[in-house]
Amino acid sequence: MLSETSQKVNKTNILDSFRKVRKYSEDICKPLMTEDYVVQPIADVSPPKWHLAHVTWFFETLVLKPYLKGYEEFDPQYNFLFNSYYETVGTRWIRAKRGELSRPTVKEIYEYRKYVDDAMSGLLQQNLPDDAVDTIITGLNHEQQHQELLLTDIKYILGNNPIYPPYDVNYKEPFFSNGSGYTKMEKGLYEIGYKGNGFCFDNELQPHKIYLEDFQISNACVTNGEYAEFIKDGGYKNFHFWHSDGWRWINENHIECPLYWHLIDGKWYEYNLEGLKPLDGNTILRHVSYFEAFAYAQWRKLRLPTEGEWEAASDKFTWGSRWEWTESSYLPYPGFKKLPGALGEYNGKFMVSQKVLRGASVATPEGHSRKSYRNFFYPDERWQYTGIRLAK
Amino acid sequence: MLSETSQKVNKTNILDSFRKVRKYSEDICKPLMTEDYVVQPIADVSPPKWHLAHVTWFFETLVLKPYLKGYEEFDPQYNFLFNSYYETVGTRWIRAKRGELSRPTVKEIYEYRKYVDDAMSGLLQQNLPDDAVDTIITGLNHEQQHQELLLTDIKYILGNNPIYPPYDVNYKEPFFSNGSGYTKMEKGLYEIGYKGNGFCFDNELQPHKIYLEDFQISNACVTNGEYAEFIKDGGYKNFHFWHSDGWRWINENHIECPLYWHLIDGKWYEYNLEGLKPLDGNTILRHVSYFEAFAYAQWRKLRLPTEGEWEAASDKFTWGSRWEWTESSYLPYPGFKKLPGALGEYNGKFMVSQKVLRGASVATPEGHSRKSYRNFFYPDERWQYTGIRLAK
Amino acid sequence: MLSETSQKVNKTNILDSFRKVRKYSEDICKPLMTEDYVVQPIADVSPPKWHLAHVTWFFETLVLKPYLKGYEEFDPQYNFLFNSYYETVGTRWIRAKRGELSRPTVKEIYEYRKYVDDAMSGLLQQNLPDDAVDTIITGLNHEQQHQELLLTDIKYILGNNPIYPPYDVNYKEPFFSNGSGYTKMEKGLYEIGYKGNGFCFDNELQPHKIYLEDFQISNACVTNGEYAEFIKDGGYKNFHFWHSDGWRWINENHIECPLYWHLIDGKWYEYNLEGLKPLDGNTILRHVSYFEAFAYAQWRKLRLPTEGEWEAASDKFTWGSRWEWTESSYLPYPGFKKLPGALGEYNGKFMVSQKVLRGASVATPEGHSRKSYRNFFYPDERWQYTGIRLAK
Amino acid sequence: MLSETSQKVNKTNILDSFRKVRKYSEDICKPLMTEDYVVQPIADVSPPKWHLAHVTWFFETLVLKPYLKGYEEFDPQYNFLFNSYYETVGTRWIRAKRGELSRPTVKEIYEYRKYVDDAMSGLLQQNLPDDAVDTIITGLNHEQQHQELLLTDIKYILGNNPIYPPYDVNYKEPFFSNGSGYTKMEKGLYEIGYKGNGFCFDNELQPHKIYLEDFQISNACVTNGEYAEFIKDGGYKNFHFWHSDGWRWINENHIECPLYWHLIDGKWYEYNLEGLKPLDGNTILRHVSYFEAFAYAQWRKLRLPTEGEWEAASDKFTWGSRWEWTESSYLPYPGFKKLPGALGEYNGKFMVSQKVLRGASVATPEGHSRKSYRNFFYPDERWQYTGIRLAK
Repeated sequence: MLSETSQKVNKTNILDSFRKVRKYSEDICKPLMTEDYVVQPIADVSPPKWHLAHVTWFFETLVLKPYLKGYEEFDPQYNFLFNSYYETVGTRWIRAKRGELSRPTVKEIYEYRKYVDDAMSGLLQQNLPDDAVDTIITGLNHEQQHQELLLTDIKYILGNNPIYPPYDVNYKEPFFSNGSGYTKMEKGLYEIGYKGNGFCFDNELQPHKIYLEDFQISNACVTNGEYAEFIKDGGYKNFHFWHSDGWRWINENHIECPLYWHLIDGKWYEYNLEGLKPLDGNTILRHVSYFEAFAYAQWRKLRLPTEGEWEAASDKFTWGSRWEWTESSYLPYPGFKKLPGALGEYNGKFMVSQKVLRGASVATPEGHSRKSYRNFFYPDERWQYTGIRLAK
Repeated sequence: MLSETSQKVNKTNILDSFRKVRKYSEDICKPLMTEDYVVQPIADVSPPKWHLAHVTWFFETLVLKPYLKGYEEFDPQYNFLFNSYYETVGTRWIRAKRGELSRPTVKEIYEYRKYVDDAMSGLLQQNLPDDAVDTIITGLNHEQQHQELLLTDIKYILGNNPIYPPYDVNYKEPFFSNGSGYTKMEKGLYEIGYKGNGFCFDNELQPHKIYLEDFQISNACVTNGEYAEFIKDGGYKNFHFWHSDGWRWINENHIECPLYWHLIDGKWYEYNLEGLKPLDGNTILRHVSYFEAFAYAQWRKLRLPTEGEWEAASDKFTWGSRWEWTESSYLPYPGFKKLPGALGEYNGKFMVSQKVLRGASVATPEGHSRKSYRNFFYPDERWQYTGIRLAK
Repeated sequence: MLSETSQKVNKTNILDSFRKVRKYSEDICKPLMTEDYVVQPIADVSPPKWHLAHVTWFFETLVLKPYLKGYEEFDPQYNFLFNSYYETVGTRWIRAKRGELSRPTVKEIYEYRKYVDDAMSGLLQQNLPDDAVDTIITGLNHEQQHQELLLTDIKYILGNNPIYPPYDVNYKEPFFSNGSGYTKMEKGLYEIGYKGNGFCFDNELQPHKIYLEDFQISNACVTNGEYAEFIKDGGYKNFHFWHSDGWRWINENHIECPLYWHLIDGKWYEYNLEGLKPLDGNTILRHVSYFEAFAYAQWRKLRLPTEGEWEAASDKFTWGSRWEWTESSYLPYPGFKKLPGALGEYNGKFMVSQKVLRGASVATPEGHSRKSYRNFFYPDERWQYTGIRLAK
Repeated sequence: MLSETSQKVNKTNILDSFRKVRKYSEDICKPLMTEDYVVQPIADVSPPKWHLAHVTWFFETLVLKPYLKGYEEFDPQYNFLFNSYYETVGTRWIRAKRGELSRPTVKEIYEYRKYVDDAMSGLLQQNLPDDAVDTIITGLNHEQQHQELLLTDIKYILGNNPIYPPYDVNYKEPFFSNGSGYTKMEKGLYEIGYKGNGFCFDNELQPHKIYLEDFQISNACVTNGEYAEFIKDGGYKNFHFWHSDGWRWINENHIECPLYWHLIDGKWYEYNLEGLKPLDGNTILRHVSYFEAFAYAQWRKLRLPTEGEWEAASDKFTWGSRWEWTESSYLPYPGFKKLPGALGEYNGKFMVSQKVLRGASVATPEGHSRKSYRNFFYPDERWQYTGIRLAK
């Protein structure tokens, strides 16, 4: 699905990139009913209409207003409504309350998108200064990030509903073959971080050397069937496998299995975009927290790789179906510099208490992934397509 | 508006009553966009689509299933979704999470209404046992109660939105003239409680004697303008006027005015169903909590009436535009008996920590009010059309 | 125990009353270790040293400062530390954090008491204006109220400790015989409220007429053994007996029995001031909430009396071992007037959301009780010696 | 103060080490009143009597019970009361509720210490197996860790009291000279981790190579005066300097300065163990959170060192007065192995969401520090003697 409609954002044909990326966000929403655009079951999960508006607000605020002469904003109240977290750009509606707002309607938001797209099309046919082009490319990558969130938020909205409506009964998750065995890596100096000429986020810089000891990394990600063994063996009942914070988390939240797993009459079911189905043991495990990934590794008497190990070895195994939890915390690389202005808030201010995930997932838009990409979430978050690769 | 489409529920022409009441719920929703049916900004405010389904569930569960032979339920999952608080009828989706559910869609819920209405029409043309008729009449009164909530919840959903969308720009609140002066009542025995042959709720029974001292009760309700004086005089800053719980409530919630009042550039505005407008000082005050009603009375060196005083004097003043807070707590009358079965949960289990409101409001359906009616809310609740009548 | 050291506060011999009341507070604390004076296991339960200082602060602030010429306060910081809730008298340390303070030490607080007692002794030998005498009498009644809290708070402090230290292994709860059968009362007008010439609190005024229907009231309070039957019959598992708020309360707090009851190896034990002992079925039940009292009455198909019924019938049965929950909410009597100044905050501002308890308890100081006395607590509170008398 | 009474734990004269370490815990408490031993103003701060008992419980449970034949435990309930977090050793009293317990008394806990010390003295004169000696040495290091907490918890207990009682009016914080300028370090491979033959914690192993880029590290820690400049410049009002989590933390908790700083009539005061004093600008800054350390570094356009940088450069500057926040998260070193049994819970299960602090502080017992020592706290914690060293 992803490969046909999305693509690597391309500086030389930026208008085409713009159209394709913008269209793909709307394609993701095609199966939705109007009601599905509105709700926010938990603070982390934003209403789809909010995503559609927010990525549009990014272009309006950071591109059209500064670079398109005579641009008139669509609605002056939208800055307050659709700013996500940029303190630089003013006050904003509280994140956890996005689901309280029935207006603007879905129709109005599609009109907003069209209005901004038309203005952007005009702008993109002009000669643009480099910093404008850079911001547009960032904006397209930003929208691609939200496309992944859009799909995972939709999954949560539908999968949290006790009647389990499918997103699309014919949905088929893109298939990734799972490897086998372990790749051995020799101790020594490796270089990690983004070294190319294309787009990357500021958190992938600077490329730098790290020293690694001998290690082995699995060629496969953990499957549903393997993880079910952990549950069967009492993994959620044995504190030895868990961090202190993780043990509290599973007990306070009564967590006994990955998100979307349901034990019905003694049999495991899993909600997926195609609906609630009996659990498929061969499918690569999805929707576990870092706490669960760590506990599983402890149970296996193995460990998670660091992000350095992962990147150093990443050419040697297949990845891309799951965001893979690493043992690394999300911290600045040596020489990290925040961008000036609002974009300086993009990544740096989140560099505490979160864990790094590497790879990409079945929800990641085509062309948006690379081996130096650093995704990050809190250790208890699991509504993304997260998974486990082991090391030793 | 109310008088044309709603009516007093009528045993002798119950089919006509049924049609009119059912139609009026849908009339209230005519100005809504699909999105407005879905959200739940606070736990107290249910999504309109939930109200539409819940009142329908009442007929399906308590009338059609027991009394219509061969009735097949519309969807077996709806009992879980649309039960409100009847423990007798099984488990239910958590009240505070009604706004998390995008499905069933609004369209499906209108189909559910039609399905149940058709079945009810069939049933109502049969000879029905008395207890069936009684339950239907309760169900219609129940729906009328939800019609009031429907309108006040819609008001909250729109009025809580920072862009203040009107419900209907042409909406005109039904006009009630406000009296003047005080009615003097002599001490002595009075009888209160419902004494007629029509429908009443169990909490209005038994009619019983009470002894009242001499008192005077205002013929007018407090107006916006009078209440604005209280604010201007520092009413929200002076603990002397407040209950200890009320003082905590205004301070923890930063409350400085009635719900829907906004101070913009030094001038008061009020959100109403027709939109955000400059405050009209002559309008009867609406949307205050019991805590505020009490504090206002203290400031005026007066007090609120008890529900007994109110009912004893109620033929002597105009009422009906606001639910008027009384000093009385919501408690059982002497000889109160819960109904058997699920309806026993209708009123009795709420008889603690709530205050009685008397009268009716501009949102109360025509024919649903009577002077013995006992409405009840917690002392901090104010999203209903609540107001203040003073006594001394 | 109580009868020897405490007494009815006596205007004609106020110095003697003062000495006896002040001494009795210290007598209560004799069995304590220094550590017991300091802790606050829940917000409701104040550290004993706080009680000892607070009642002293009352005399210093409301008597010595205004009436004793040249009085120098013991420590200017004590007003901040030992004010309980009088907003009139300035800011104060947060109630829930009284247990955070190790200083002033217990020894310093006894010195504070002695300092104030000496000054008061001097003052009491002068000719005092009537309002000073009235305030002193209020202060002594206030200290008697805190004597009851002191004992119940000590019970909580020790009884909440998993090693269950006794207050005094030789403690014997004062014995009250329990009546049997029901007293029948005829319908008609009764007068309630305080009518004597002695001291009473403002909330007992004005005496006024009420009309009561025929009723019967039990001559006995419910015993441990009778209540154990309710538990055995699944009383805490059946929502039919409970208010909606009460059902939530027992479920959220995992409540399955009265406070201080413990089920150990299938047998009930109760912590009392003499230590943890097997439950005595004949003892009058103690430490239940209003929610539990109501549910028990529902299970018995009976009800709690109103405070009017209780007072009207109170000469006809034995009372005094338990504060008896009534069905009445704590509201002002007709003609209720707050006192001027700080004492105006004594009662009136609590007249919302609380229930009235009538009678007195084994912890009430001798001479402090009378049939018009109105005690009040929230419906979930039960660390006082609360009990159940039924009516029908 | 520290140097006279404490010492490096010594295998060859373990009995002497045991006596000195045990005595020093009691020396720290000498200035306390009985009441000071009991309170717990926040969950992080344990009552001093709990510390004294808990470190004793460690020897009783992990040494005496397994290794001393015929040992009878002092009180079987103490395991439940004084276990801190070892799930392996059974259930335990909730950490946040330690301040609820007035018993056992302080006197009883000193008796407990004596009882265990006597038994330990006997045991230490026997020939002991190696694992017993290792556990004793761990126990002594454990007690030294609690000696630091004991002093910082006492500081919090007294410093949180609005009357600011001094711990000791003659207390003088050990003096550490502060360096100046920056030390330059060359890029290359460095080895970090504990490499000696003495005692170290499991989290300091294995020693391993890391690659560092060129960097400079300050020879001085930030002073009060320097930090006051940051406040004066609006540091707490400017989101640019803060992590997103840190910005929320200061705003939700109304934090505007380091712990123990008070602005009184426009002048800064600081509570220290000798009492509340005017802020000394030359003193090395203490009691800041990681969030504040990071924000200060951002304001200075510098950064915090990583723990690897710190250790690599640590021989080149003076350290020891403050625990210095690093940019590193608390994670396992390559090859980290948990110890078997209860001691396996000592460190590993905390390796998520915490930051590493390096160095030692004025509260660290003599002989307990080394350059490979890894201390760790959550990024908002600051009641330890924490400080800031900058890098670039």
